[in-house]
Amino acid sequence: MWRVGRSSDAREKLLGAACELMRARGYGAIGVAEICERAGVRKGSFYYFFESKQALTVEALRHAWEEESAAWRAVLGGGGHPFRRLEALLRAQVKAQYDSKRDVGVVRGCLYGNLVLEVGGNDEAVHACLAEIFDQQVAMVHNVLHEAHAEGMLPTDRATRAHARAVLAQLEGMVLFAKLDNDPQLLDTLWEHVEGVLALN
Amino acid sequence: MWRVGRSSDAREKLLGAACELMRARGYGAIGVAEICERAGVRKGSFYYFFESKQALTVEALRHAWEEESAAWRAVLGGGGHPFRRLEALLRAQVKAQYDSKRDVGVVRGCLYGNLVLEVGGNDEAVHACLAEIFDQQVAMVHNVLHEAHAEGMLPTDRATRAHARAVLAQLEGMVLFAKLDNDPQLLDTLWEHVEGVLALN
Repeated sequence: MWRVGRSSDAREKLLGAACELMRARGYGAIGVAEICERAGVRKGSFYYFFESKQALTVEALRHAWEEESAAWRAVLGGGGHPFRRLEALLRAQVKAQYDSKRDVGVVRGCLYGNLVLEVGGNDEAVHACLAEIFDQQVAMVHNVLHEAHAEGMLPTDRATRAHARAVLAQLEGMVLFAKLDNDPQLLDTLWEHVEGVLALN
Repeated sequence: MWRVGRSSDAREKLLGAACELMRARGYGAIGVAEICERAGVRKGSFYYFFESKQALTVEALRHAWEEESAAWRAVLGGGGHPFRRLEALLRAQVKAQYDSKRDVGVVRGCLYGNLVLEVGGNDEAVHACLAEIFDQQVAMVHNVLHEAHAEGMLPTDRATRAHARAVLAQLEGMVLFAKLDNDPQLLDTLWEHVEGVLALN
């Protein structure tokens, strides 16, 4: 029993360390040795849990998104005006960048967006995992637009998947600029721009 | 004279090879040996021209943006309606992703945006170079918005630097999704969304 407890603890530590390092420095720049050191786990143990850095990365991304998507669902699935829920979701993303700047001095941006642009199609397993995560994000936002449409607040031709994607594109693009300038304040106008994308203003 | 000619040719080849490899696979995943092999230049020669991969990267990015910014200026500085010029600029970016898909089978995305998200603040010289490039892009778009305002086609509060950045954020974000899905068609609605950001619709 003790061994099992200890093992699963090491696995969690490896997942957490991988996420933390990827948020700071991306995928290519980090190696198994560094992940193990950060996690305080011996390299031999690493390969007991994961076949490769790639396998760990996919697990770590799933793990991160599982937690994060629960928060997305809580915000988007709550009561109240659909647009207020969408606004709350986006403001939470902005707050995360303010928190990152305050806590580590750096606007780290979006873990998934960072990896899309770094990894591209060069790593099939990581890429497929990212595609699945963004697919869920688009579906969640699309769902809110659909609700807004059902309540008569958004015409059919703007309650589309393309518009949901465009909302998230504005978020990802603005986060890119905030990361570039290491300035979360650039995100203060995000909701205003998203209102524009949905032609709410 | 022959040596000089040959040398500067090798330098150009190294710059071109670095750009090409970075477009395909980013910054971290490529090394000096691979750049030299691609350029057909001996590794000893590399260090005659460049101190490091970092130094070459900065030069290569400047080189790429010098060419590209000339095209931006030509499109944005032409005559006609300011919004039609902005639309033409964005359509040229979309076309570049269609061309990439046709020529190499892959939507490669934006070289500069890719590197922002990959490199972040971890490489100061590359980061400063990217910041300068995006600064110029924002200034160019801001200038068009300013012209539109001067011609009475855009109110003051939408002819701002923040709006220029939001236009480019929409482009970068949509390109990220097109890269993720390896599908340039996702960009077909880009101009429509940008009209939304500027509240033109």
